[in-house]
Amino acid sequence: MEVQIVQRVLKMNDELAAEVRQLLEAHDVTAVNMMSAPGSGKTSLLERTIQALGEAHDSTPLRIGVIEGDPDTSLDAERIQPLGVPVVQINTSGSCHLEANLVKRALASLPLDDLDVVIVENVGNMVCPVSFDLGESARVAVLSVTEGDDKPAKYAGIFRTANAVILNKVDLLPYVDFDLDRFKTFLGRVNDHAPLFMMSCKTGEGLEMWLSWLRGHLAEIRRS
Amino acid sequence: MEVQIVQRVLKMNDELAAEVRQLLEAHDVTAVNMMSAPGSGKTSLLERTIQALGEAHDSTPLRIGVIEGDPDTSLDAERIQPLGVPVVQINTSGSCHLEANLVKRALASLPLDDLDVVIVENVGNMVCPVSFDLGESARVAVLSVTEGDDKPAKYAGIFRTANAVILNKVDLLPYVDFDLDRFKTFLGRVNDHAPLFMMSCKTGEGLEMWLSWLRGHLAEIRRS
Repeated sequence: MEVQIVQRVLKMNDELAAEVRQLLEAHDVTAVNMMSAPGSGKTSLLERTIQALGEAHDSTPLRIGVIEGDPDTSLDAERIQPLGVPVVQINTSGSCHLEANLVKRALASLPLDDLDVVIVENVGNMVCPVSFDLGESARVAVLSVTEGDDKPAKYAGIFRTANAVILNKVDLLPYVDFDLDRFKTFLGRVNDHAPLFMMSCKTGEGLEMWLSWLRGHLAEIRRS
Repeated sequence: MEVQIVQRVLKMNDELAAEVRQLLEAHDVTAVNMMSAPGSGKTSLLERTIQALGEAHDSTPLRIGVIEGDPDTSLDAERIQPLGVPVVQINTSGSCHLEANLVKRALASLPLDDLDVVIVENVGNMVCPVSFDLGESARVAVLSVTEGDDKPAKYAGIFRTANAVILNKVDLLPYVDFDLDRFKTFLGRVNDHAPLFMMSCKTGEGLEMWLSWLRGHLAEIRRS
């Protein structure tokens, strides 16, 4: 009974995700669904990304919009807003993941014709968000080194469906017990194709590789 | 419709939690429900706790059992087992929280007559576990400093229902942007009664205070 309801909820979400995808395509915008545990540094990564894109002197600047998902508060949107990009905060009222209907509503508040990419920062949770398609073209899983090298084994789903994996806070590696080889072995068992970016939002390490990937992904989506 | 189902699931869980509570009371055992995001150090805290209790020369030793909850793998139970205390691993098969029926089943594998406390390490998740009573007499919320000082604001539920709060990995405070005053302010808004333990499983800081609290809690439960 419970299983049937869950399946119905997921089916309804899939239909709404398809609508989100159509809406985005109509405006030539792609969405990236960024997932992680709470506190792995998703918002810091967004800040860094926005700053770097703002400073880049490209012939074709990458215009970014942000959707912030949190159970409560608008703290994250308040961090993004001063950086001068469009941002919408979703509060899930205590719920543990974003769903496509919430993203669809949030997109109505973004100037889609002036954007190339919308990055959706999901609710901090390594389990529930995985089941919910938000209409994204790519998923990015973020893990910080302080969370432990065993996470791709214990929380396989988030890593299995990721198109890119970011290992964040690598500046803290000297201070924590994180076995990089063990992490890569566990990750390789559930996902052998997603690129892994070693990142520090504090030092800026890895930022260029991540931005290259983002640009490459956008180009690929536009070619297809 | 969805709301009704959720309410029914929670009601059924509450009934099973009451059964767990009766079972524990019959054996004079109390359960502590330990909750946090993935990677905040719950298992390390358990390791430290078990080691310290083993080394303590008390007239009345505190006998501990452990239930490990994870979406997948038995990695955590394999860490606890060598320490010589009874441990049961629950795999939720990808689900995001423990429920009372799983705990009830796990308790059947523990030697309850030889235990004083069962610590239940919930699935790493700051949202979903909060709604599910497991028959515990106390809840402990763990946050590591690397996760950010804003968490009691953004993930209020887990802190609101906690009987004790552990701020873990304080040895990393010099290397991260964590404003302790801001954290305490946010925490105080949702919970002004739970004691806060500054903890480092690496250095052992805070361990004695936490053990005192655990002993005190047990004594309180037995008096009541």
